[in-house]
Amino acid sequence: MNTIAVTIGDPAGIGPEVAVKALAALPADERRGLRLIGTRAVLERACEIARVSLTFADAELTEGNSVALESVDVPGLPIPHGKVHAAGGEAAFRYIERAVSLARDGKTACIVTAPINKQALNLAGHHYDGHTGMLSALTGGASSFMLLASERLSVIHVSTHVSLREAIDRATTERILATIRAGYSHLRRMSVARPRLAVASINPHGGEGGLFGREDDVMVRPAVERARQDLIDVVGPIPADTVYSRAYQGEFDLVIAQYHDQGHIPMKLVAFDTTVNVSIGLPIDRCSVDHGTAFDIAGTGQADHRNMMVAIGYARRLAASRANRSR
Amino acid sequence: MNTIAVTIGDPAGIGPEVAVKALAALPADERRGLRLIGTRAVLERACEIARVSLTFADAELTEGNSVALESVDVPGLPIPHGKVHAAGGEAAFRYIERAVSLARDGKTACIVTAPINKQALNLAGHHYDGHTGMLSALTGGASSFMLLASERLSVIHVSTHVSLREAIDRATTERILATIRAGYSHLRRMSVARPRLAVASINPHGGEGGLFGREDDVMVRPAVERARQDLIDVVGPIPADTVYSRAYQGEFDLVIAQYHDQGHIPMKLVAFDTTVNVSIGLPIDRCSVDHGTAFDIAGTGQADHRNMMVAIGYARRLAASRANRSR
Repeated sequence: MNTIAVTIGDPAGIGPEVAVKALAALPADERRGLRLIGTRAVLERACEIARVSLTFADAELTEGNSVALESVDVPGLPIPHGKVHAAGGEAAFRYIERAVSLARDGKTACIVTAPINKQALNLAGHHYDGHTGMLSALTGGASSFMLLASERLSVIHVSTHVSLREAIDRATTERILATIRAGYSHLRRMSVARPRLAVASINPHGGEGGLFGREDDVMVRPAVERARQDLIDVVGPIPADTVYSRAYQGEFDLVIAQYHDQGHIPMKLVAFDTTVNVSIGLPIDRCSVDHGTAFDIAGTGQADHRNMMVAIGYARRLAASRANRSR
Repeated sequence: MNTIAVTIGDPAGIGPEVAVKALAALPADERRGLRLIGTRAVLERACEIARVSLTFADAELTEGNSVALESVDVPGLPIPHGKVHAAGGEAAFRYIERAVSLARDGKTACIVTAPINKQALNLAGHHYDGHTGMLSALTGGASSFMLLASERLSVIHVSTHVSLREAIDRATTERILATIRAGYSHLRRMSVARPRLAVASINPHGGEGGLFGREDDVMVRPAVERARQDLIDVVGPIPADTVYSRAYQGEFDLVIAQYHDQGHIPMKLVAFDTTVNVSIGLPIDRCSVDHGTAFDIAGTGQADHRNMMVAIGYARRLAASRANRSR
């Protein structure tokens, strides 16, 4: 079972467009391993906009070149592009819900998600902070780590969607250690034989011996030491202003970022269109494009599907590693 | 008076080497505008190591191709490379002191500094946090803003060498506004006709309407509004994870970074060897290379002088703008 489920996200955004563009661009054999989760009318409109020709078939009946579609009917669809709409939020929610249920039934190895709109989700009565919270709730409440992967630079975050003050509070030795371990296991799964990890500092210059804060000495250093006792090849705290550059030059396979922007700033700078967002620690595998719904260009056919292609590629590698593991 | 004074930094580091390499690489007419501040024996050793041939002449007597040298004699020099030494710290201090005195006497328009070692400085009894504190003390106590400039990306920092927690406390509306104004004035001096500025957010996603912290709404937004009332073209808070990438793509001339690593991470990633560090707000003009003493390679001749060349180039532009201003 190597199938990858692609949820098309909020129907008013660019998700459906980039999904069909990516599917059309894939070689037939790779396309066969995919299953779209969305609403047929929305996808047919997306094909028109994107000027691609795809035939959708019921997921269980696919043959030839047609695309396997897990069609989810949602009242009120399709909706206009570029607008926050309860029906859009409802649809986005149901696509994810269906994907999780497929994953649970062993019918998909990995979920790839197109972008959703938080406001629309809330309008529809689903009060989550986005995909991460929703997936956590739908899969039993496990917390996850956000890993951003690109060819030359990858980061995993100790915390993400909290204020900077709260992020500093959350950077405890336990949490940093758990992040190191999660990142290490993921790289091993992705066939990195001997992953080289580095932990970024919280304070400038790593705190400069306590002059610029004690967090690096008190919280970060013990986490690195404990991980090294587990024989994980990890160093740190390395001053945050140099560690990303050193990783980008090839010295490390993964950087542990202490807070959202510390990890996101370098990724958006060097891999704007090619970053895959991976949720680590959930009972199911999930990765995502790293862009939003782009309501401003949704429906115009301009949306770039490169990021979706890269995300699908990453999901294929994840699915393959899962297959190897369960052998 | 367009002369630029170059201090050679800690004699045990790569400062003397990169200074003589840069001087040797400059065309004769550009070299004539420079005055080295250092110890003759240290510079002669640096020329041997760097395999460059330079003749040093007393600064007031320079002619032909010789390099103007403001020689500062320090007991105990030269010292071995790569070692923290009180004599090195003492020398580094005296070079700066001399440069400041030249600047005060109107004999230099801009100081370019090679790297010093804080520990050595302290061993010599000079208790400063580095160049910035020293220059502030020597010029009357004015605080300064650190601006990092490169061809495609420039940032100015609301705060620098403090813990991340303290940096958040320091990001007040007053301080952010002062940083915007300082950055704007500097760009105007550097002949940017209509500078486009952007202020990075403190919290992820700019705080997401208060969900991830209130600092962006309470502190940053009012500063941007007040600067706009002064007719400064500034926007923000822009989520920190995208603003640097947008500036790098050409949308903004300068980003106001809220703390040390927020500004340093992107700079080290996209302009590692070509960033100039400029002190804004002092009564004298000063810029610097953006690397350290590199004790590990000092004395081997490997040190790259590219960053020093760029710093000297920036200083020439600053000096020219000062000349224009005083006309």
